[in-house]
Amino acid sequence: MNVIVVSIGDELLIGQTVNTNASWIGQEISKLGGNIIEGLTISDRAHDILSTVDYSISKSDVVIITGGLGPTKDDITKHTLAKYFDTKLEIHQPTLDKITTYFINRNRPILESNIQQAALPKHCVILANDYGTAAGMWFEKNGKIVISLPGVPYEMKGIMMEEVFPRLREQFQLNSMYHKTILTQGIGESFLAEKLSDWENRVRNDGFGLAYLPSPGIVKLRISSPNGEIDKVLIENYLSEVRDTLPENVFGYENQNLPEIIGEELRKRKLKIGTVESCTSGLLANQITSISGASDYFEGSLLTYSNKLKEEILDLSHNTLKEHGAVSEAIALQMAESGLKKLDVDICLSTTGIAGPTGGTEDKPVGLVWIGLATKYGVKARKFQFGDNRERNIQMTVLSALNWLRYELIS
Amino acid sequence: MNVIVVSIGDELLIGQTVNTNASWIGQEISKLGGNIIEGLTISDRAHDILSTVDYSISKSDVVIITGGLGPTKDDITKHTLAKYFDTKLEIHQPTLDKITTYFINRNRPILESNIQQAALPKHCVILANDYGTAAGMWFEKNGKIVISLPGVPYEMKGIMMEEVFPRLREQFQLNSMYHKTILTQGIGESFLAEKLSDWENRVRNDGFGLAYLPSPGIVKLRISSPNGEIDKVLIENYLSEVRDTLPENVFGYENQNLPEIIGEELRKRKLKIGTVESCTSGLLANQITSISGASDYFEGSLLTYSNKLKEEILDLSHNTLKEHGAVSEAIALQMAESGLKKLDVDICLSTTGIAGPTGGTEDKPVGLVWIGLATKYGVKARKFQFGDNRERNIQMTVLSALNWLRYELIS
Repeated sequence: MNVIVVSIGDELLIGQTVNTNASWIGQEISKLGGNIIEGLTISDRAHDILSTVDYSISKSDVVIITGGLGPTKDDITKHTLAKYFDTKLEIHQPTLDKITTYFINRNRPILESNIQQAALPKHCVILANDYGTAAGMWFEKNGKIVISLPGVPYEMKGIMMEEVFPRLREQFQLNSMYHKTILTQGIGESFLAEKLSDWENRVRNDGFGLAYLPSPGIVKLRISSPNGEIDKVLIENYLSEVRDTLPENVFGYENQNLPEIIGEELRKRKLKIGTVESCTSGLLANQITSISGASDYFEGSLLTYSNKLKEEILDLSHNTLKEHGAVSEAIALQMAESGLKKLDVDICLSTTGIAGPTGGTEDKPVGLVWIGLATKYGVKARKFQFGDNRERNIQMTVLSALNWLRYELIS
Repeated sequence: MNVIVVSIGDELLIGQTVNTNASWIGQEISKLGGNIIEGLTISDRAHDILSTVDYSISKSDVVIITGGLGPTKDDITKHTLAKYFDTKLEIHQPTLDKITTYFINRNRPILESNIQQAALPKHCVILANDYGTAAGMWFEKNGKIVISLPGVPYEMKGIMMEEVFPRLREQFQLNSMYHKTILTQGIGESFLAEKLSDWENRVRNDGFGLAYLPSPGIVKLRISSPNGEIDKVLIENYLSEVRDTLPENVFGYENQNLPEIIGEELRKRKLKIGTVESCTSGLLANQITSISGASDYFEGSLLTYSNKLKEEILDLSHNTLKEHGAVSEAIALQMAESGLKKLDVDICLSTTGIAGPTGGTEDKPVGLVWIGLATKYGVKARKFQFGDNRERNIQMTVLSALNWLRYELIS
């Protein structure tokens, strides 16, 4: 089942709205076993809609169109499609009843333009919309299917799930595409690709797809099989190989994130954590607490941005600060140790570095960061050298700290 | 200048990544005065890339392509475009130098696949990428322009702003669009629109465009004139009217942000600031320090996430905590006062609230937040009621705190 997704709307073209509909449809259709071959974003113009439908029908089995079904003047999809499929519009009673009820329930007057939303193409299957006033439409012509849905996300998703997917599954006897994604941190995409070069050949030779999906500081590896879950175990074994080869870098699967993963590990072990931050200035604490229920394991933090506060709040040695500087192994260790006591926690992470873009020297360039980790068993520190983008350096420091903590917890 | 935006990547088609690049490009090209006529999302396949470039070139003046320029096996855009424009690849020394420096600076080994990223089409303009290893490319054929950029957002944006927009402005003489944007915080878009209804009519009657551009917690108002800077003063007067009507809400212009604005105000007055945070858990501190040189005015923070730390670190009254709860005016005031002393600063902001989604009660629903502000002149607190989305509640609290501080500083 080859699918083309067409998103109608000027607000999408000029970037006022991000096209989350197309992404959602892509995910769901892929999970169904369909194949999205192309995505098109076009203007609310009859001419563009007509030529796009023509083109899309010739290249695919199913065309899914979102947008242009509201009650205002821009909303011409319905009229254009009726013309394309050579069918008249007539009032569809069930839809008119739905629309009437919708307005009565909200104590709002029903307008002529809303009544006209019940005027629908005679020769198509009407797809009920339980979340709004614009009905969806399913047209068929020469074995090709064209589906038209409202652009409002929760309305589109409702109709897709209740009316479209069941019909597509039946019509195309669909076998789901199977994907599994592994997440890595702390290793660059090209270095990872080179390290996994032989492994990659084996994966592809087995007929699977492999994609590297980079994000700042994170590289995702996705293996795909067109044969559904049959190859699940084989694929999971391939990914386990990666995890066993790079246990410090591989941190999770699918849509997991580091804060959630370390949260689970801390909760499992009934441990409390705090942070002492300088260059990350609260982002590490903020990320840890982005998980609901973080108060079960997160106590708090001391953000000692200035050297004065490092001395006053953490009782750090003035001499060590003078001798080694704030961005040093000695200070990272002292910060973590001091935080462990003052916050009365089981684990304390510290960060000190030069986020940039200013502040670097030849000895200590921008992007140099020390991360400290203190527990009752002792304290250690690791050195990192990032780039010159302030925001990225801070983000990379946070990810590196969380991933290091994860690895230490599970080892 | 008609533009088609082509986004290459299977991860986009299957919805693993949302297409924020296309939205950003749409916004920027529109601001430039260009016209986005269509958006296409296609697979990483040579055949698809070739036919799409062919189609796009016939329908537009400029084709902007993102994606497919990384160092792994999926990344074939460069080879495909070289073939389309009938040009060989050869090592581009400046790019090779850049790539080498990039890896040396990060203490990482340079791989063959990275060296190959410097093999670029001979007959095109190389667009320098200062943020990564994949250079951008600008091809011209029969008056049509095809631009190829990496898919990684900060790399793409960097090259667009530094290399592409200046060239497009010059080539298409795009100087006639004039925009001025004012930024508001703490007032909803529909409420703002209603308040400014008459004003809006006057603006439009003068032939200007007006757009409300919402972002979480911030509403931007942009006035546009197609006549260039001729109407600059008139437009600025219109925006001053808004500022004078809503001085608490209007905080800045264009691309300013609150951290940078309060940073300037603090620096001007030689004031030091610290924060005591509970529900925002470091995000307020992190935002303040997102500005390079923040160490001139930011001392540090105490993130007292648990009540235990509120008592131990801040010396908050156990009885007040028991009686009023952590999320109360009394505690917000005490947190700010205590922070002022312990951090030894001129200004201390405190935050305490229920970020959600759990933790709400009938008395204190999810989204309830108190913000405290202490100076040598005294301490005050303000109450806010946000929604039920954790991330948005935290973000809204930070923006509200910064904007309140801004207003207090300038009054």
